[in-house]
Amino acid sequence: MKNYKSYFRPSIDAMSGYTPGEQPKVMDLLKLNTNENPYPPCPGVVDGLKNIDTERLRLYPDPSADKLRDTIAEVYGYKRENIIVSNGSDDMLTIAFRAFSDAHNKVAFLEPTYSLYPVLANLQSCQYIEIPLNDDFSIKDDLLEKAAPSNLLILTRPNAPTANCIAIDDMRKICSEFDGIVLIDEAYADFSADNCIDFVREFPNVIVSRTVSKSYSLAGLRLGFAIGSAEIIAGMMKVKDSYNVNMLTQYLAEIAIRDQEYLNETVAKIKASRTKLTEELKALGFKVVDSQSNFLFTSPPDGDAEKLFKFLREENIIVRYFPGKKTAKYIRITIGTEEQLERLINFLKKIF
Amino acid sequence: MKNYKSYFRPSIDAMSGYTPGEQPKVMDLLKLNTNENPYPPCPGVVDGLKNIDTERLRLYPDPSADKLRDTIAEVYGYKRENIIVSNGSDDMLTIAFRAFSDAHNKVAFLEPTYSLYPVLANLQSCQYIEIPLNDDFSIKDDLLEKAAPSNLLILTRPNAPTANCIAIDDMRKICSEFDGIVLIDEAYADFSADNCIDFVREFPNVIVSRTVSKSYSLAGLRLGFAIGSAEIIAGMMKVKDSYNVNMLTQYLAEIAIRDQEYLNETVAKIKASRTKLTEELKALGFKVVDSQSNFLFTSPPDGDAEKLFKFLREENIIVRYFPGKKTAKYIRITIGTEEQLERLINFLKKIF
Repeated sequence: MKNYKSYFRPSIDAMSGYTPGEQPKVMDLLKLNTNENPYPPCPGVVDGLKNIDTERLRLYPDPSADKLRDTIAEVYGYKRENIIVSNGSDDMLTIAFRAFSDAHNKVAFLEPTYSLYPVLANLQSCQYIEIPLNDDFSIKDDLLEKAAPSNLLILTRPNAPTANCIAIDDMRKICSEFDGIVLIDEAYADFSADNCIDFVREFPNVIVSRTVSKSYSLAGLRLGFAIGSAEIIAGMMKVKDSYNVNMLTQYLAEIAIRDQEYLNETVAKIKASRTKLTEELKALGFKVVDSQSNFLFTSPPDGDAEKLFKFLREENIIVRYFPGKKTAKYIRITIGTEEQLERLINFLKKIF
Repeated sequence: MKNYKSYFRPSIDAMSGYTPGEQPKVMDLLKLNTNENPYPPCPGVVDGLKNIDTERLRLYPDPSADKLRDTIAEVYGYKRENIIVSNGSDDMLTIAFRAFSDAHNKVAFLEPTYSLYPVLANLQSCQYIEIPLNDDFSIKDDLLEKAAPSNLLILTRPNAPTANCIAIDDMRKICSEFDGIVLIDEAYADFSADNCIDFVREFPNVIVSRTVSKSYSLAGLRLGFAIGSAEIIAGMMKVKDSYNVNMLTQYLAEIAIRDQEYLNETVAKIKASRTKLTEELKALGFKVVDSQSNFLFTSPPDGDAEKLFKFLREENIIVRYFPGKKTAKYIRITIGTEEQLERLINFLKKIF
């Protein structure tokens, strides 16, 4: 056998790849680490799975996913031509990086934010600009100035892992003044008080990205969608893999998105638990960032988040810890069910 | 509202995108245009769909798809570390282009071949080298010389749309002498007399790519997989989207791949129909390329394939036609069921 030598592009050899949150295979753990929804998907999805015409599995799915796009358009008040779907939100981000970014076109995003963005930038061999947030994770006044050399600005709203939102008026100002694409990553927007979905009508350079992974309880299905002007969507359609969303996902996501009543119920329960957990943590002396999402970003009384992360792990409670200058004093806790959060709080009461 | 100006990379604005085969929404057509399997998926898949734990849909799928990879490894005689899975074979091609190709690293492929490759090259802004085949679609002696300036050589075996195979000894010689990655696209290999799946043991620079879309009757599911050295697979894992294969696909593809008996039965039926259709077409004066696949590439007696394509369309029989110097005299016909092919032959007998 010949010896192996690397034929990878240098930037691939140099990069370490994205580390997704753990998906532990022991299922009795209390898993509060990847912002999954603790409630099951809507009943229609459960029934839908029993009624699938399996014969159709032998055929390719609709490459343009027209039926699903029509449903999304209807529910969110747009037209089919304004909608693109993807194999989860990460696929949408990949499509955007491939469409707008390269060695000559930089991307800009907040710091801290979703840790996948720099990985995608390295993969696309484009430079990235990190726009530092204040210590309380609010934006600084020079955001537009910092973002100016880029062609694609990603604003994550609510932001991850910090859980808070840029004020809607600030969002409007940024979208109006930035000369490039503003991708508003609204993966968690169903849990926030307001959102930017109407911006697409106002700004031809805005893309709003959503997912069924969190609020619709369908992380396992992989469906992301984005809303933008017809011109932007048409360009992004050229970049996506033709058959990027499989038949079962097209079929089941459509059912889930139609059931806005179930979505609202589930979201209301999570918001109520969020309020309760926030209060209990504050009572224990934790600092809690104002959360507009289905998770909390919180710093323990002694500020030693890494120690707490490890303590919780030993107790089979998995949360997420992000080393790094601004995030190292915090842990990120997904909002679970009442019972799950009770277990967490009872344990924390023993320590603090 | 501001006027729209394009923020797309110039190469995206310039490209026209890939045109997938039609997926007509009227289902009473005789659809022999996208090489789907006319037989349903294996019975285990049908049962599997009824027994899915829908609760699991709220969780992210296993990002490394270990259980599915272990099954593929077992069935194909490799180890988990030799296997990567993807959102269909097209996703695997995208991963390979992103891993190995850029402005400084060219890709080479046959001409004619799968029409997606040049689209992916444009998307990745890498130059591509087309290696012309002889008029009978066999390879020319200068293949290695032509491919030499590239870093990634894609050999499609059986080739599409021509249906024939490069001889296995020629494959071995090419893999041994080419200084770069050889990606052997074996999407149709279950229908051919031999394949290159053992090459991975012999050559550290070889990747063999497969799909469940054709032989396993699961085009709607989107699952591709590739086999390569542990080093190559580890590098490709960095490039793929973390959660690129959804939970349902991981679960159902595993069931399908375990059922090699059903696969062999279905493939045997398609091969028998292929032999019969080949003979009938030859009897009508058609030229038929020796097919090792689930489709035929065939030229009508008068050589006017475009006219025949249109005739068939009017008869609600959809096949595929590829304009272009070498392919314009041929149509590509997917092997359907006995009954479907009878309808086709009866119509052709009326014309020729």
